Amino acid sequence: MKDIAVWSFRFAPPFAQGLLRDLRVRWALREAGLAYETRLIGAEERTMAPHRQRHPFGMIPVFEADGRQLIESGAIVYAIARESQALMPEDEAGRDRTLAWMFVALNTLDVPIQALFDIDVLSREEPWAPPARPHAVSNVERRLGELAEALGDRDYLLGRFTAADIMMATVLRFIRHTDLATSIPSLAAYLQRCEAREAFRQALDEQLAEYAVNAPAAA
Amino acid sequence: MKDIAVWSFRFAPPFAQGLLRDLRVRWALREAGLAYETRLIGAEERTMAPHRQRHPFGMIPVFEADGRQLIESGAIVYAIARESQALMPEDEAGRDRTLAWMFVALNTLDVPIQALFDIDVLSREEPWAPPARPHAVSNVERRLGELAEALGDRDYLLGRFTAADIMMATVLRFIRHTDLATSIPSLAAYLQRCEAREAFRQALDEQLAEYAVNAPAAA
Repeated sequence: MKDIAVWSFRFAPPFAQGLLRDLRVRWALREAGLAYETRLIGAEERTMAPHRQRHPFGMIPVFEADGRQLIESGAIVYAIARESQALMPEDEAGRDRTLAWMFVALNTLDVPIQALFDIDVLSREEPWAPPARPHAVSNVERRLGELAEALGDRDYLLGRFTAADIMMATVLRFIRHTDLATSIPSLAAYLQRCEAREAFRQALDEQLAEYAVNAPAAA
Repeated sequence: MKDIAVWSFRFAPPFAQGLLRDLRVRWALREAGLAYETRLIGAEERTMAPHRQRHPFGMIPVFEADGRQLIESGAIVYAIARESQALMPEDEAGRDRTLAWMFVALNTLDVPIQALFDIDVLSREEPWAPPARPHAVSNVERRLGELAEALGDRDYLLGRFTAADIMMATVLRFIRHTDLATSIPSLAAYLQRCEAREAFRQALDEQLAEYAVNAPAAA
């Protein structure tokens, strides 16, 4: 992979800092030892033609390598993982299992977790949010219990670190405002283990440093 | 791929018939011309040890081929697609784009669609559901509008039919109780085009026939 670029937002409000999905791509690239540039856009550019052409849903990240672009953090991280044994075993069975756990993170876990994030963060001022919360919490709790059981006493989802852990840890970060994951000791330790990785720290520091430089002037 | 088996439920209540995710796997296998057997389990087996061992979240489908098992419909359909040009281009760029659109379906679209399905179907009797509905509808509408624009006048997401259309069509079926997708002419035509495919019809007929044979006796 050559001439790698990652599109992300120039700035994010505090509630979203450290959550935006370009973090996954930066983390994966650093685990794989691949150099990249970031292309920062303003949130207002989301719906404008140049970015819509790159991303039909006006989201980030967009990824570019070898002259072609790709969307969706899951697909981007899988493409990066194909380049490096640091992110995925080389045999077909190992790759299939890695992708399976990426989908576990981005669908089985993310569906209930995003519902709760919406209630607690995005829509927290809406009158419907508090009454809807207990059901959303219970959906998340069930999946986290099953996840903890599946993880068992392994360090990472597949035993060794893979791209699936990048997706899972960054999905779990969307409930960092609760103790739902961290009150389960094995999940707390798992998250800490993932977030202690040098590639994660560097990716997060880089993302937050960009926001700091580009923060709007105080009113 | 040899000795293929797909685990699914012996019976599903009417609201879930034609939605359960083994449909995606049956559809993909039929597009690829691969023979398979189904392994039917009762919903009560979900949480029991034998099935938990196959699937840590107690879900279906589970897939078996060449003596190894795989979970998550997205990962299963991708593994099948690798076997057949009927489901995915053979070049790396085409495969990456197919996987990207599979993630669009299973995350970008499915997150808001499952939230609405929960409100309208699973939790429809809960007092919090009606007040939460307008917000959920508006999230779905935004994504459907962007999807329609991305599809444009193409027959399928990537131009030609791919595994991504299997995921997208089956995700959109979760809002079949509304006219949110079908009121957009290009999406209505897209869904009809997908559902008119012989492999889809056969997969759906097979699933529904199993339910019919295994329906509980009327009380």
